[in-house]
Amino acid sequence: MTGPRYTPLVESLPSTVPFVGPETQERARGRPFRARLGANESLFGPSPHAVAAMAAAAAEVSLYGDPEIHALRTAIAAHHGVAPDQVTVGEGVDGLLGNLVRLLVDEGAPVVTSEGAYPTFAFHVAGFGGRLHKVPYQGDHEDPEALAAEARRVGARIVYFANPDNPMGSHHPAASVRALIEALPEGTLLALDEAYVELAPEGTAPEIAPEDPRVIRFRTFSKAYGMAGLRVGYAIGARDLIRAFDKVRNHFGVGRIAQAGALAALEDRAWLAHVQAEVQAARAEIGRIAEGCGLTPLPSATNFVTIDCGRDGAFARAVLTELVARDIFVRMPFVAPHDRCIRVSCGRAEELRAFAEALPLALAAAG
Amino acid sequence: MTGPRYTPLVESLPSTVPFVGPETQERARGRPFRARLGANESLFGPSPHAVAAMAAAAAEVSLYGDPEIHALRTAIAAHHGVAPDQVTVGEGVDGLLGNLVRLLVDEGAPVVTSEGAYPTFAFHVAGFGGRLHKVPYQGDHEDPEALAAEARRVGARIVYFANPDNPMGSHHPAASVRALIEALPEGTLLALDEAYVELAPEGTAPEIAPEDPRVIRFRTFSKAYGMAGLRVGYAIGARDLIRAFDKVRNHFGVGRIAQAGALAALEDRAWLAHVQAEVQAARAEIGRIAEGCGLTPLPSATNFVTIDCGRDGAFARAVLTELVARDIFVRMPFVAPHDRCIRVSCGRAEELRAFAEALPLALAAAG
Repeated sequence: MTGPRYTPLVESLPSTVPFVGPETQERARGRPFRARLGANESLFGPSPHAVAAMAAAAAEVSLYGDPEIHALRTAIAAHHGVAPDQVTVGEGVDGLLGNLVRLLVDEGAPVVTSEGAYPTFAFHVAGFGGRLHKVPYQGDHEDPEALAAEARRVGARIVYFANPDNPMGSHHPAASVRALIEALPEGTLLALDEAYVELAPEGTAPEIAPEDPRVIRFRTFSKAYGMAGLRVGYAIGARDLIRAFDKVRNHFGVGRIAQAGALAALEDRAWLAHVQAEVQAARAEIGRIAEGCGLTPLPSATNFVTIDCGRDGAFARAVLTELVARDIFVRMPFVAPHDRCIRVSCGRAEELRAFAEALPLALAAAG
Repeated sequence: MTGPRYTPLVESLPSTVPFVGPETQERARGRPFRARLGANESLFGPSPHAVAAMAAAAAEVSLYGDPEIHALRTAIAAHHGVAPDQVTVGEGVDGLLGNLVRLLVDEGAPVVTSEGAYPTFAFHVAGFGGRLHKVPYQGDHEDPEALAAEARRVGARIVYFANPDNPMGSHHPAASVRALIEALPEGTLLALDEAYVELAPEGTAPEIAPEDPRVIRFRTFSKAYGMAGLRVGYAIGARDLIRAFDKVRNHFGVGRIAQAGALAALEDRAWLAHVQAEVQAARAEIGRIAEGCGLTPLPSATNFVTIDCGRDGAFARAVLTELVARDIFVRMPFVAPHDRCIRVSCGRAEELRAFAEALPLALAAAG
């Protein structure tokens, strides 16, 4: 008996999975981490009002969530001063990016991103057969001019640009994003990933007319709102594009607890301000810890700090390995020259204390 | 400025959305339903242990869920006597079916289903450009022999077969499912949707060797487990096929609350038995209500009862409209001759009392 007949595209995809979570490492190690500082989760937690809303929704989880996600979309639209039909809500930015790629990318379609940028976007482009063209960062920043030039050169369907950026934590001011939009060729859509923007300086997020057909912007409840495990993100864009998501999305995919939790989180502005302050303090503390060990913290507009270990990728990988051996979960950029760095999420005092204890030992062991 | 360039496939997809939820109707009507009996949700609720697990997980929702979904997959595997790598967990059966279609169906690929069967499967097949071939039911049952014959005729990549069936509530015994598997041509995969099987008579679910390359079976926490709003389903199949899902799935798509809630629900066998008893009683009560109005309830192996209104589709649609006007949310099969029926979900005493009050009035108004 033969097995199922996969599409040629699926046959061509690698079986390896790029998504190794800390739980996988914990199972392999046989013990838990002391400090979970590798996944840019918000260790300051979700809004207590959101927790209460999720707990209440759990008792009603027998009922499907509203497939139009009406209440949440309406609240998001009001928050951003756009119309509800200029907003689509999905299963995190990951899920939304997958659907965007599905809408615009078929086999061989050119797509542009930065070398070392978000791997899940690259996963989706490969998964729909697109051809990914990568441009290098300029120093520790994404390079909007190079992205636009490459989009013009290849006639890209999509340019992916994260602002602020992961894994470097850097950001561009709004004017640079606007210049990128103006420099795009006809028919190229900018996928502007603003997952971390609530943690960036004022003036990072540009004003964009929602009906501008050249841009779709993504936001998430996973980072500043502290709900990575809930899986809710949203996109703002032109009505035609937003409506196109309905052609392919999993209409009941954002469930009842997810909708209730995200709505309550959006409404709790005081909690967001609290997290913003905590993140700012934690960034400073991570910087002090790094500098105390002779390392260089990079400026961060996110909920993590990328630390330049001052040598090459092999050394930074050794530092990371030694931190993991001391039960500190961190990650690092995966392409040179950024792989001279490790990436440390903002944590509470206890996690940062554990990191501060482990770092000098890890550096010594890494030689 | 031109807009984004959609793929030709996406351009060909309809903009209409087939997924109208009761909330959409409530917003249009300007008032809520008294009894929500149209979406085959479990009005008996989720396990209290699962509610507690979800509430506890809500407080930790800052953390991503385990992308390997290890604990839940292991528990599901133990429950079914298979290995964890023969199980994949996804965002409901809807999400899993979408990924299955993506793995096997490209433009023009033949797929077989029943006329009037699950619209979301058809949505996915259309969404990936597959060519859907439909066979009629035999009476009020799906027709496994006709499905197999059509699969042989067109060389289907997938045959979709729900047992028990929605929207008719009928079922086939395990032997018929086994005969269908044996009758499939080489290279056709049976997508066996057992979303309702926990509510069917003993002997409905066949023994299937998990490594049998001809079948993948789907289960869900949405129906008997009472967690439609959580979005967790799973599939059991051969390792190669299960591994292929990793090529395309949203790896963090099943979040932390979802994993915790589903695990607790799976472990609460007493609650499942309670729901099974409640469903059995509610089916009988819906039958009595229907018969009291001179209508014919069809035998049900699910958490709903399909009621033959005894005339044509126009009459049943009028009955449904009159029920909705009386604040009773029900649905109905959408193709003839099944559209002579309405479909009523099992509810608690209060919902069934509301239905019992409204039905004679609706019938009188429908003429």
